Amino acid sequence: MPATARATATKTTLPIYQQLAGVLEEMIQSKSLRPGDRMPSVRQFSRQQGVSIPTAMSAYASLETRGLIEARPKSGFFVRLRESDLVRNPWSQSKISKITDFANLDPLHSIMADHSNPKFVPLGAGLPSASLLPGLKLARLMGSIARRLPSAGLDYDIAPGSEMLRRELARRSLDWGCHLKAEDFIITNGGTEAVSLALRAVTEPGDTVIVETPTYFGFSNILRELRLKALPIPIDATTGIDIDALGTALKTNRVAAAILIPNFHNPMGCLMPDDHKKEVATLLAEQGIPIIEDDIYGDLRHSGARPRCLKAFDPDGSVLLCSTFSKVLAPGYRVGYIAPGRYRDRIHKLKDTSTMANATLPTLAVAEFVKHGGYDRHLRHLQHAFSHQVQRMREAIVQTFPENIGLSRPQGNFLLWCELPKQVDSLELFKRARAANISVAPGPLFSSDGGYKNFIRINCGHPWTPTIERSIGILGHLVHQLAR
Amino acid sequence: MPATARATATKTTLPIYQQLAGVLEEMIQSKSLRPGDRMPSVRQFSRQQGVSIPTAMSAYASLETRGLIEARPKSGFFVRLRESDLVRNPWSQSKISKITDFANLDPLHSIMADHSNPKFVPLGAGLPSASLLPGLKLARLMGSIARRLPSAGLDYDIAPGSEMLRRELARRSLDWGCHLKAEDFIITNGGTEAVSLALRAVTEPGDTVIVETPTYFGFSNILRELRLKALPIPIDATTGIDIDALGTALKTNRVAAAILIPNFHNPMGCLMPDDHKKEVATLLAEQGIPIIEDDIYGDLRHSGARPRCLKAFDPDGSVLLCSTFSKVLAPGYRVGYIAPGRYRDRIHKLKDTSTMANATLPTLAVAEFVKHGGYDRHLRHLQHAFSHQVQRMREAIVQTFPENIGLSRPQGNFLLWCELPKQVDSLELFKRARAANISVAPGPLFSSDGGYKNFIRINCGHPWTPTIERSIGILGHLVHQLAR
Repeated sequence: MPATARATATKTTLPIYQQLAGVLEEMIQSKSLRPGDRMPSVRQFSRQQGVSIPTAMSAYASLETRGLIEARPKSGFFVRLRESDLVRNPWSQSKISKITDFANLDPLHSIMADHSNPKFVPLGAGLPSASLLPGLKLARLMGSIARRLPSAGLDYDIAPGSEMLRRELARRSLDWGCHLKAEDFIITNGGTEAVSLALRAVTEPGDTVIVETPTYFGFSNILRELRLKALPIPIDATTGIDIDALGTALKTNRVAAAILIPNFHNPMGCLMPDDHKKEVATLLAEQGIPIIEDDIYGDLRHSGARPRCLKAFDPDGSVLLCSTFSKVLAPGYRVGYIAPGRYRDRIHKLKDTSTMANATLPTLAVAEFVKHGGYDRHLRHLQHAFSHQVQRMREAIVQTFPENIGLSRPQGNFLLWCELPKQVDSLELFKRARAANISVAPGPLFSSDGGYKNFIRINCGHPWTPTIERSIGILGHLVHQLAR
Repeated sequence: MPATARATATKTTLPIYQQLAGVLEEMIQSKSLRPGDRMPSVRQFSRQQGVSIPTAMSAYASLETRGLIEARPKSGFFVRLRESDLVRNPWSQSKISKITDFANLDPLHSIMADHSNPKFVPLGAGLPSASLLPGLKLARLMGSIARRLPSAGLDYDIAPGSEMLRRELARRSLDWGCHLKAEDFIITNGGTEAVSLALRAVTEPGDTVIVETPTYFGFSNILRELRLKALPIPIDATTGIDIDALGTALKTNRVAAAILIPNFHNPMGCLMPDDHKKEVATLLAEQGIPIIEDDIYGDLRHSGARPRCLKAFDPDGSVLLCSTFSKVLAPGYRVGYIAPGRYRDRIHKLKDTSTMANATLPTLAVAEFVKHGGYDRHLRHLQHAFSHQVQRMREAIVQTFPENIGLSRPQGNFLLWCELPKQVDSLELFKRARAANISVAPGPLFSSDGGYKNFIRINCGHPWTPTIERSIGILGHLVHQLAR
C-alpha cells in the first residue's frame, strides 16, 4: 500500500504526543538513550520536533508516568535506570529441532478454568482483565440492535459473516500495511476457529507444519488433533523467527505450511521487523508454502505506530491472516476473522460445515463498537494500561526472583516469558503456585517436545494490585525454593 | 429410565387437555377415527377419560381450531374431511442406493441468504419466523447478565460449556426418555458444530457413513468437506428408516457411522416409532457402529407427548445425540449441544481445538430462558403455531398444485416435503420461483446423488399471511407450467 495512506492511518489513530513518546521510548529501549543520559529540555524537544510546548510536555509526562524517565530538581529529565533494564533476555533455542509429535501434556484446561475462578490470581491464561474491556457498552449495543432489528439478531449470520464488520476490517487493514477488501474476510468463531480452519484448508493429516519455538500452546493442541507434525524453528527474543534456521530447515524437510506470530509473539513478545517479514513471506511463497499469520496482538503495541502484518508482504495470496477481538474487546464474544487470500473458497466451505454461522448479536455489537464506539480511543487506553502493567510486573519479578533469570521485553501485548534457573521444574512450580491460588503457565506448554522446563509465562493483563504484588513475592519464594 | 419419571416429566410439560387432544389427533391421523366419524360427546369423553367437562371441552376446542374436527348443529362433533387428507404420501425410495460421493450442487447459500432478505417469501430455509421467537426477551436476558456478572459475560465459556445450561439439559433429558447428567453434555456452536465434531470423532477421511434418503442437505455438505462417502438408506414416509434395507446394507458394506434424524425428519417429517428406535440402536451397536442422532426437531411435536430420543435406547454409549436451540429459540445465538456418550473425551478435545468456546452471553441467556423464562409455555405456543401453519400450507398446496402430487404429513416440525409430477425439474422451479421472489428448497439438495429432481421442501415456519397464500398460488402455477 502507498506510504501516504499508512502515514494518514497512523496519524488518525495516535495523538502526536503519543507518537513522540513512542519514538523516544524506542530510543531508550534500543539504548540510543542510555540510563542516566540527560533528555533534551522540553523547549529544545518542542523546537526539534516542530510541536507545541504542551505537546512536548505531554510526551515527557507519558514517559515519566511509565517510569522511563525521571525529573531531577533543577536539572531536567533523565533516562531512568531501572533494575529490570539490566535483566537479560530469556534464552532462545538456536539449533533446529527435529519434527515432533506432541506429548499430551495439558494443564491448559486448569489454566483456562482458573482464570474464571475469582479464587485464583490470574497470571496463567493470556487474557486481559474484564475491568479493561467495554463489557457493558458491548452488551448495551447488543440490546439496542435486538430492539432496532429484532429479526436480524435472530437470523443466521452465515459465512462470510457480517458485512458491516468486514467493511470495518477492510478499512483498518490500511493500518496493517494491507489494502484488503470486505470480501477478502470471513468472520470466525474467535481466533481458534480461524487458525483451525486455516490449518484444515492447507494441510492433510500427517503433514509437517513449521512452528516457532516457543509458541502458543493452542497451536500445538490444534496440530495434535489434526494429526499434523511440528517442525520448530528457533526465534530471537527481539526479532522473531531465525531466518537462516528457517532456510536450512526448508532445504531438508517437506513442509505443508508455517504458522507464525510476527507481531508481539506469544509467549516471547518479540516483533518481527518489516524486512524480516518481507524475507519470510518471499522465502515461503517461492516454495509454495502457505503462511498462517496469527496477528491477535497486532493492535496492542505499547507505544508507537501499529506494526505491519506479514500479510502486507504477501506476494501471491498465500498468507492466511488470522485474528480476533478476544484480546482487545471481549474474549467471550467469539468474534474472530480470517483473510485467507487464495484459500478463500476452501475456508468458506469449511466454515459452512464446521459452525455455519457466528453468534449474530455479538458480531454486530463488535462491528458497531469498531465503527462508532471509540475503538481507537479504547485501544490507546489498553496499550497504555498493558505497557504499564508489563513494566510493573518486570520490576516486581526482577526484585523477587533469583538474579540469573532471563525476562522478555515485549513491545506489545501483556505477556512475559521468564527463564528461571535451570534446576527449576516449572510444572512443579505450576502445582505449588496453584496450591497458593496463583495461576501461571508452565513453559513445556509452549514447546512441541516438552522443552522449556524452566520457563513460565506470566499474564500481565490485569491492573496492578497489592494481591498481584504479593503473588509475585510468593512466586519468587517458590522459585528460590525450587532453585536450591 | 424408569417409566414413572417419564410420566412425571411429560405431565409437567403438557396440560392435560393438550395430552388428550394429542391422543385424539393420533387416532385421527392413524385413521382409527375417520373423516365423517362422529366423536364421543364431550360428556362421554370427560367420563371415559376421568377429566372435568371443561378439560374435555378444551381438548375438543383445540382440535376444532386446528381444523381436525367440526361441530355440526345439534349433532355434536365430527372428524372433518379435508382435501389435504386425501393426498398421498410422497414417494420414498425402496431400493438401497450405491455408496456415493457428492455432486457439488449447492443453492444452499442463496437459500440461506434469501431467508434474511425481506424481499423474499421465506419458504426455502428451514427456519421459524422471528415473530414466533423470544428475541427481545433473550436480548434482555443478555443485558441483565452483563450487568449482574460483568466479567462472566466477557470470559471464555470453554468446553464443556455453561454448567447451568448443561444442568437444564440433564433435567430435560428425562423427557427424551434418557437420564443424562450435566457432565454428559458439551455445549457447541449450534447443531452444525455438534454434527461436525461427531463425524470427526468417529470417522476417517474415505470412510462410509449411513445416511437416510432423503436427508438434510447440511449433512451432505459436512460429509463432502470431511471426504466421507454416503450410503443412503430409504426411509418410510411415516416410520422413518427402512430397517430391512439397513440390515441388508450392513451385510455388504463396511460402515463407520450412521447419521439419522429419528424425530420429525428433515425433510420427510416422519417419526420413528420407539420399537424401531430400539431395533436400530441395537442393530448398529452390535456391529460397533456409532449413531449420530440429530434431534433438533424433537421438542416440536404438533400435539401429544414429546417423542423419545433414539439415545434412550442406546445400549453402550455409542449414540452421539446432537441438537440445538436454533429451531425453537434463536438461530443466530448458536447454542447447540452434544451428548457424545463414550466419545466424550474425543469431542471435548475437538471442541477445544475447533472453536474453544461458545459465545458466553447468548449461551447464558438461553440457559436462563430454559430455566426460568417459560420455555415449556413457549414450546406449546410454537407447537400450536407450527401445527396450524403446516396444516394451512398443506390445504393451500392441495388446492393449487396438480392433482397427482405427494405430500408429507409431519407430526412435528415446520417442513413439508412435496413430490411434484415427474416432469417437473425442481431446480428450474427453484430458479423461476426465485425470480418471483419466492424461496423454496429444491429436492436434489436432499439427495447424495442428485436424485429427488421433482421434489421440493417448503418451510412452514412463518405465520400464514396473504403473501404466503399468494406465493403458493404462484408456485402452483409454475409447477403446472413445468408439468406440461
